[in-house]
Amino acid sequence: MTISAFDHPILSGLLGDEELAPLFSARAEIKAMLRFEAELALAEADENVIPREAAREIATSLDTFSPDITALKAGVTRDGVVIPALVSQIRVTLSEATRPHLHFGATSQDVIDTGFALRAREAVEILGKRLGGLIQSLEALEERDGQIDVMAHTRMQAAIPVPAARKIRSWRGPLMRHTKKLAAVREEAAVLHFGGAAGTLDRLGEKGEPVAGRLAARLGLALPGHPRHSERDGIVAFASVLSLITGSLGKMGQDIALAAQSEIGEIELAAGGGSSAMPHKKNPVAAEALVTLARFNAALVGGMHQALVHENERSGAAWALEWMLLPQMIVATGAATLRAADLVDGLAFKARNA
Amino acid sequence: MTISAFDHPILSGLLGDEELAPLFSARAEIKAMLRFEAELALAEADENVIPREAAREIATSLDTFSPDITALKAGVTRDGVVIPALVSQIRVTLSEATRPHLHFGATSQDVIDTGFALRAREAVEILGKRLGGLIQSLEALEERDGQIDVMAHTRMQAAIPVPAARKIRSWRGPLMRHTKKLAAVREEAAVLHFGGAAGTLDRLGEKGEPVAGRLAARLGLALPGHPRHSERDGIVAFASVLSLITGSLGKMGQDIALAAQSEIGEIELAAGGGSSAMPHKKNPVAAEALVTLARFNAALVGGMHQALVHENERSGAAWALEWMLLPQMIVATGAATLRAADLVDGLAFKARNA
Amino acid sequence: MTISAFDHPILSGLLGDEELAPLFSARAEIKAMLRFEAELALAEADENVIPREAAREIATSLDTFSPDITALKAGVTRDGVVIPALVSQIRVTLSEATRPHLHFGATSQDVIDTGFALRAREAVEILGKRLGGLIQSLEALEERDGQIDVMAHTRMQAAIPVPAARKIRSWRGPLMRHTKKLAAVREEAAVLHFGGAAGTLDRLGEKGEPVAGRLAARLGLALPGHPRHSERDGIVAFASVLSLITGSLGKMGQDIALAAQSEIGEIELAAGGGSSAMPHKKNPVAAEALVTLARFNAALVGGMHQALVHENERSGAAWALEWMLLPQMIVATGAATLRAADLVDGLAFKARNA
Amino acid sequence: MTISAFDHPILSGLLGDEELAPLFSARAEIKAMLRFEAELALAEADENVIPREAAREIATSLDTFSPDITALKAGVTRDGVVIPALVSQIRVTLSEATRPHLHFGATSQDVIDTGFALRAREAVEILGKRLGGLIQSLEALEERDGQIDVMAHTRMQAAIPVPAARKIRSWRGPLMRHTKKLAAVREEAAVLHFGGAAGTLDRLGEKGEPVAGRLAARLGLALPGHPRHSERDGIVAFASVLSLITGSLGKMGQDIALAAQSEIGEIELAAGGGSSAMPHKKNPVAAEALVTLARFNAALVGGMHQALVHENERSGAAWALEWMLLPQMIVATGAATLRAADLVDGLAFKARNA
Repeated sequence: MTISAFDHPILSGLLGDEELAPLFSARAEIKAMLRFEAELALAEADENVIPREAAREIATSLDTFSPDITALKAGVTRDGVVIPALVSQIRVTLSEATRPHLHFGATSQDVIDTGFALRAREAVEILGKRLGGLIQSLEALEERDGQIDVMAHTRMQAAIPVPAARKIRSWRGPLMRHTKKLAAVREEAAVLHFGGAAGTLDRLGEKGEPVAGRLAARLGLALPGHPRHSERDGIVAFASVLSLITGSLGKMGQDIALAAQSEIGEIELAAGGGSSAMPHKKNPVAAEALVTLARFNAALVGGMHQALVHENERSGAAWALEWMLLPQMIVATGAATLRAADLVDGLAFKARNA
Repeated sequence: MTISAFDHPILSGLLGDEELAPLFSARAEIKAMLRFEAELALAEADENVIPREAAREIATSLDTFSPDITALKAGVTRDGVVIPALVSQIRVTLSEATRPHLHFGATSQDVIDTGFALRAREAVEILGKRLGGLIQSLEALEERDGQIDVMAHTRMQAAIPVPAARKIRSWRGPLMRHTKKLAAVREEAAVLHFGGAAGTLDRLGEKGEPVAGRLAARLGLALPGHPRHSERDGIVAFASVLSLITGSLGKMGQDIALAAQSEIGEIELAAGGGSSAMPHKKNPVAAEALVTLARFNAALVGGMHQALVHENERSGAAWALEWMLLPQMIVATGAATLRAADLVDGLAFKARNA
Repeated sequence: MTISAFDHPILSGLLGDEELAPLFSARAEIKAMLRFEAELALAEADENVIPREAAREIATSLDTFSPDITALKAGVTRDGVVIPALVSQIRVTLSEATRPHLHFGATSQDVIDTGFALRAREAVEILGKRLGGLIQSLEALEERDGQIDVMAHTRMQAAIPVPAARKIRSWRGPLMRHTKKLAAVREEAAVLHFGGAAGTLDRLGEKGEPVAGRLAARLGLALPGHPRHSERDGIVAFASVLSLITGSLGKMGQDIALAAQSEIGEIELAAGGGSSAMPHKKNPVAAEALVTLARFNAALVGGMHQALVHENERSGAAWALEWMLLPQMIVATGAATLRAADLVDGLAFKARNA
Repeated sequence: MTISAFDHPILSGLLGDEELAPLFSARAEIKAMLRFEAELALAEADENVIPREAAREIATSLDTFSPDITALKAGVTRDGVVIPALVSQIRVTLSEATRPHLHFGATSQDVIDTGFALRAREAVEILGKRLGGLIQSLEALEERDGQIDVMAHTRMQAAIPVPAARKIRSWRGPLMRHTKKLAAVREEAAVLHFGGAAGTLDRLGEKGEPVAGRLAARLGLALPGHPRHSERDGIVAFASVLSLITGSLGKMGQDIALAAQSEIGEIELAAGGGSSAMPHKKNPVAAEALVTLARFNAALVGGMHQALVHENERSGAAWALEWMLLPQMIVATGAATLRAADLVDGLAFKARNA
């Protein structure tokens, strides 16, 4: 099925991201959740909460575990979350004695949110690198074309000529700020979620904190002062940064599409889309896609902010809303960085009267 | 890939719709677009715009045509739309003489928008039937449980007892209105789009109108007074109705989740989700999903309204935004009707002091 | 205070509407609410629910009643709605014997929602007239300039020349459809809300329906089959139509701003904004405002759809969200129709090579 | 006029903020803009760009200048911005010789954006203090009630008992993070905007940078590396933090409204709203308002992100969209902090079986 442009075998060529998308596939999701269960068992063994052999058996079994997807789908229909069905499937692969030690003290949200955090961390790293690359490309562009005079436009009217450098810097400046924001928000999006049934790690007693500490270290995630199940601000802040990135790239795309208009022609694009009806055209496809992705994320970021009203200790409704929005926002941001890189690499400023 | 809940092999069990989703697969999309090309050729032959034999060859060839998806993806990356690459691929299957007659006088948007209209029409039909079923189920529920006294709650506080019928009617009333709205909006969403390069059918001359009339009749679509390429209000109105439906179902879901609270217990659910940490729980999974889907569509409908600002004769940016949002909204609406049907069928009101 | 552009003594010149705004002033709101209370008393007297003399006293007293705004403000802070304080203030003006007959059987929502419906009806009428005027202006423009050839632009690139008529019709078509939609949605937005504490008119017993019928007739509002307190689809549908209107006008504004670009100049504007730094400029101020108002309503319409999740018999939270969004959307729509009228009246198409 | 809840003489009691709102009145706006013009003149005199006496005359004249609001309104209708009319009005108060030195080298956006930055800085300070107060109140609440056992609820069902401290910390944690975010974003929202016609300070030549430096110092604002006219990420990041704050407070409000339900009663509210129909009720008015304000800002923040697509050197359309959204978001955030303070101060946890 291909309801989403990101999962679409054709449209994803324009609006998708082949490096980021796999991080949010069902396969990657399950892998991250299994990793949580394995590291949890090992951390609990380190603290003598469960027997060492049980932890080893769990880790070994998870190494080769392959879930029955159809049964997981039925499970999510029934339970609203995949974990009860997933844990049941894993239990069957374990010895009778080890079964109670799997997922001990944890709850669905621990597994799902931490599984997401592991992949968010990777996504942040990829996006950070790409922003770095874009900033360099824009520096190179400024180096090469910065002295060319182009017309500044204010309120859709020609204003006065400015060097192209002025325009390029207004594209690069926000990306430099977003790079910092991305690094800062990583600390909030890539945290361990581990709180048990109601955020008190009730079944672990005094071992709760030490197990959490070991688990965070094993997974390479930040350890919050207390479990943050119902505190969704970290990932909403993350979503906001994503939309800031696409918004700033959308502004660049809009500028480029305007400057590349047939009647203006101050920017020339190496690659331009063809038309089925008018072979003479050279459409600013990537520039337009940046505007599309900006407006897409701007629409979805509002939905993420709605999800902050996460009632009580765990809201099935608000939580699932994040699942529907955030992976799309991440991939949209990835797609925007890819399109932007192509666009910048293939554009040249042209003197107005040349 | 499974970035979207609707395309997700697991989450689609909760948030997806196996009947509606296939309408928005790449396969169904291509099928609808090929149908447009075939019927266009036949309509043009009927009006002696292209030779009868060419139309026959086109229709026959399209019957068995199977596109090279990888090349289409490359095409969409380059051109921003799939049609130039698709038309090229089809042309290769035709005799030299017939090639110029394929896609004659049409433009990408004609094919894509009409292809969408064909599927929107089917989606409207399916949704209409489901709303009808839901209305009946609610009538049956009222028949059975309507006399039971339940507590009305205003502003999150117990107010006075009312018969369950009062509550049920407040769920059913909007669905009855939405059924009418859906029928009305079908006339706007399921129209022929056929305007050629710039909405004037310039290459068809005086044959433009008659060909359009025949094409609309062949496809079973409404024929607008003039081509509506850049007039997006029809599908934005459609999107608004979709969000009205999910919003009203979300209200029902919220009511049910509140009435089924452990401390209130005025509604009992046949099916309740299990918890990995607390086996005693019975979570109102479908009710919560209705709230999720309502808030999801409410976020996306704003994006669709942004897409009304569709500049000039065709906006690559605003148009692609629709592709990213509307199919998701349709399937979300479908999922909500399915979850609602399950929910209503499996709930029972309970007297407060029983 | 002037937090909102619509209430702003300066900005409202660009973004406001001096005819529509007064309908949503506190003064007009109170007037409408007092009218509800007076007509309710008279309708109840007609059905012998309260004594005729009490009704007369209530109506007479309300004729000259002037509320203590400061006390109403304190009331709304305390109660979340203005009605308890307002009713108390009115009671004091009545004889001891009449006091219990005021507001008999009604609840806050009856007064507030019906008070809004009365004004929504007027707003719909004003907007409908203005759309009619705009359609006529566009017809006149087509008559005068329709034959002029202008360049069609697709995907931000020059495509082929088309007559200006083609462009003008794409602006007018949506407005014609919106006019119909506005008339249809009036039936849903301008309904009587009268349900008492929990939507059952419990205190009126068998007189509930007849009183409601008389009240609707007196107020000139549609009478729904049952009270719709918690069914918010009518006004959300209204909000959607408002945003469709601004969106279509925003598209026209965007087109005009693009065609009026210095380098294109296919549209000449009679009125253009001056710049404090560049006296030579002639900015397409009204055209830009149309885009602004379109995007404003597109953002707010999503919030209105969120408000559909109106829990139980009355949600303080979702209801107040409407108060914050809908009046603004109405006035934004009004402002857009005004700016559009100025814009269309003052524009002329120019032949490309003239 | 009172279209907006914030400007409404009655509703502002629930949804407004009497300390923050005046910062965004037309009066405060003009005062900030006049301050910009005065300090600009003085900074330019310091750098010998304009004569010292001219600067003194400008500063003196502005001290007592009182604009003709009606003429400013006409100006904004014509020009889309207030500055041309405002500068004209000021010029008339100056000697012939001094007139050209007013507003020298500046453009409308410099004055408006910097005028906003001055007030955003004050708003951030006020909000920061209030968050600090709220954090303390929540600490005091934890101190007093933290040991009381309450029922945790997950997915709208009773889960297991937890100490009230668990709940309180989940409200306080996000506020602590938002306090930091607010401080960080101040650096981006409270910057000097000074770029002249097209962001190059073209009329100041080599004096551009030194004048900007002096001006920033005089106004107490950060000085960006280059003028940021078209880079809107700073205030969109600010808007995002505002919505994070209201979202986290909305979550607290939702929790409190749920815990205060008649059937649950784990939280008792000192102040509860009365009903006009049911005198026995005690409605969680402030808690609901927090949910309303959260959803309001979540809707508007999406509009702010749309405004990132700010075309070219200055977009009339995207810029005015900010004016319509951001002041409202700030006051909504202020209102939420006020309501939250009242709510926390007046609530008490109650043991479940007490």
